[in-house]
Amino acid sequence: MKLTLEEPKILVDSVGVISELVNDVRFSVDEDKISLIAMDPANVAMIIFNLLSSSFTEYQVDKPVNIAINLDSLKAILRRTKPSDVLTITLDEEKNKLQIQLKSDSTRTFNLALIDVEEKEQKIPDLQFPLKVETTSYKFDEAIQDMDIIADSVALVADKDNFTIEATSNLNDAKTEIFGDEETKITATGTEQIKAKYSIEYLKKIIKASKLSHKVTLQFNKDYPLRADYIVKDKLSFSVVLAPRVSND
Amino acid sequence: MKLTLEEPKILVDSVGVISELVNDVRFSVDEDKISLIAMDPANVAMIIFNLLSSSFTEYQVDKPVNIAINLDSLKAILRRTKPSDVLTITLDEEKNKLQIQLKSDSTRTFNLALIDVEEKEQKIPDLQFPLKVETTSYKFDEAIQDMDIIADSVALVADKDNFTIEATSNLNDAKTEIFGDEETKITATGTEQIKAKYSIEYLKKIIKASKLSHKVTLQFNKDYPLRADYIVKDKLSFSVVLAPRVSND
Amino acid sequence: MKLTLEEPKILVDSVGVISELVNDVRFSVDEDKISLIAMDPANVAMIIFNLLSSSFTEYQVDKPVNIAINLDSLKAILRRTKPSDVLTITLDEEKNKLQIQLKSDSTRTFNLALIDVEEKEQKIPDLQFPLKVETTSYKFDEAIQDMDIIADSVALVADKDNFTIEATSNLNDAKTEIFGDEETKITATGTEQIKAKYSIEYLKKIIKASKLSHKVTLQFNKDYPLRADYIVKDKLSFSVVLAPRVSND
Repeated sequence: MKLTLEEPKILVDSVGVISELVNDVRFSVDEDKISLIAMDPANVAMIIFNLLSSSFTEYQVDKPVNIAINLDSLKAILRRTKPSDVLTITLDEEKNKLQIQLKSDSTRTFNLALIDVEEKEQKIPDLQFPLKVETTSYKFDEAIQDMDIIADSVALVADKDNFTIEATSNLNDAKTEIFGDEETKITATGTEQIKAKYSIEYLKKIIKASKLSHKVTLQFNKDYPLRADYIVKDKLSFSVVLAPRVSND
Repeated sequence: MKLTLEEPKILVDSVGVISELVNDVRFSVDEDKISLIAMDPANVAMIIFNLLSSSFTEYQVDKPVNIAINLDSLKAILRRTKPSDVLTITLDEEKNKLQIQLKSDSTRTFNLALIDVEEKEQKIPDLQFPLKVETTSYKFDEAIQDMDIIADSVALVADKDNFTIEATSNLNDAKTEIFGDEETKITATGTEQIKAKYSIEYLKKIIKASKLSHKVTLQFNKDYPLRADYIVKDKLSFSVVLAPRVSND
Repeated sequence: MKLTLEEPKILVDSVGVISELVNDVRFSVDEDKISLIAMDPANVAMIIFNLLSSSFTEYQVDKPVNIAINLDSLKAILRRTKPSDVLTITLDEEKNKLQIQLKSDSTRTFNLALIDVEEKEQKIPDLQFPLKVETTSYKFDEAIQDMDIIADSVALVADKDNFTIEATSNLNDAKTEIFGDEETKITATGTEQIKAKYSIEYLKKIIKASKLSHKVTLQFNKDYPLRADYIVKDKLSFSVVLAPRVSND
């Protein structure tokens, strides 16, 4: 296995976002992509990540392998990359280590121990949503940060014309209205309004993915999970399935 | 009541400075201005603040009202304004809330609970000073930060020609001399030198007002309060009356 | 004694770097230079510092003097210099204080108490090294920061052609290779490879000197001190002699 990136930023950013939610993970590497399906330790959020072979300058995988690794250690190494570095990842199966090499005017080599991840294989749940909102990740990002002032949960409210993000505490409340326009497209199967509640703590981690893609697709339903997809065509996808906060109203 | 600001910065900065000294406050809003007179919780500093109607794009006040509010909550909301936002404040007397709306490509609405402030009305003390120093807020700001290295109180010393800021600890001492020139004007009723001591902790909060105005007027006397005025003509005034540190020399 | 600097940055940076390792120190001032030889409190590193008279705009020293001073206090004052300030140092032997004056559009005067430093005079050890590496301080700086991810000690490894910086922990390991080229010159008396271990904690303090000079000279040997020299011709030298971590391999 030998993977080369002339612009390591895509990997640095991806690992940064994923490590917000999970730490010890098992990546699957096959001839098409590096992929990851993992639950966060509290079993509230599932991460589904794919980094396609076409993101790499060189992508050479002879047989599918699993690479279990501690993301904090990997992130510490990736944080040391400079824009001029060419990053190469190889697998030393004998020593059971992942080798990361950064090459510019000096050559820096990091060997990271592979770990054991007990976790059984995760299956992506088959979810059906009555509604889909495609908008800019920046707008969603800002809205979640606005609501964070008010409360620890947020309500996503939408019908076929409007998408509203709301929060309410004992004293204060707030809402951001995002209207359907050239940047925001709402697709609804029905005509009724959908209102669903989720944890702001988790949403604040998920919106870090706005550095991966400037578009986000949100699907949700009352007392049902949220699915957020950040996709860069032919490069990567980062998706989260987030359990709902059951609402009392 | 409906107040609109196309450049919210003036309000954001004002609330930031006021909240250094007081937290639960009652603003008075009449047809000319928003105003505030408040003592800090330790009864050491009085804040006198006026934001004139001419600072606003739209200023519509039918009858005078009091708006008691928690400044930390207000500041958290104002910190979310972007330069492109138009900010509108309205009063929802029915729900007992202050509504703050930020409008750019999205519309964000925050409803902030009004609170009860027990405090009786404050009266501005009638003070007579033998001396007035007008200088740049930057110079005064720098001088206080210099003295902060040395001690926890500062002496302001002036005669009709010179203005000096001094601090002395057991080991070290420091002074900044600001001479009368085109930027600094000293007006004295007498010829004797005046020396007065004040808390650096409070002065460090007061000098935050240098972001409101690049001029400051200082009036003081031995064992007598300091009055500092930061004024932007036709826009705002922020003044503090600060109790003295009684000097032993 | 009267010393004037029109660009105080050289002094600000020097004191910043020295204070990483020592705090209460005694500078010697003679007609040629300000100098310092001091051990860090843990007796692991010796600092040898010289700031030459030619760095100063005015350098007037009538007789050699010792100036014992607390570097944290001095650093707090120097941190207050602005790029436009002219800095003047004088000695008030009567009051036993060092006077530091900063002059731009205002005049700021700090009087810093001289202290007693018990420490006996330090002698620079006479060390012989089989090897000398001259490289850019930036490359060495980066390499130490890379290794800091992995372990708390680092091995410097060199022969006449290559210079490698390595670190190994139970799980992970890393190395940076710096090849001899126009930026990096290796001078060896023998042909064998030299490998020596030092504390990363100390090296991280030493590499702060990369802001003083963009070149560093490293001399080391197995189970023997490291000597690092940061030199700016006709201006200053900052050198550290660092005790080895005795290696078990």
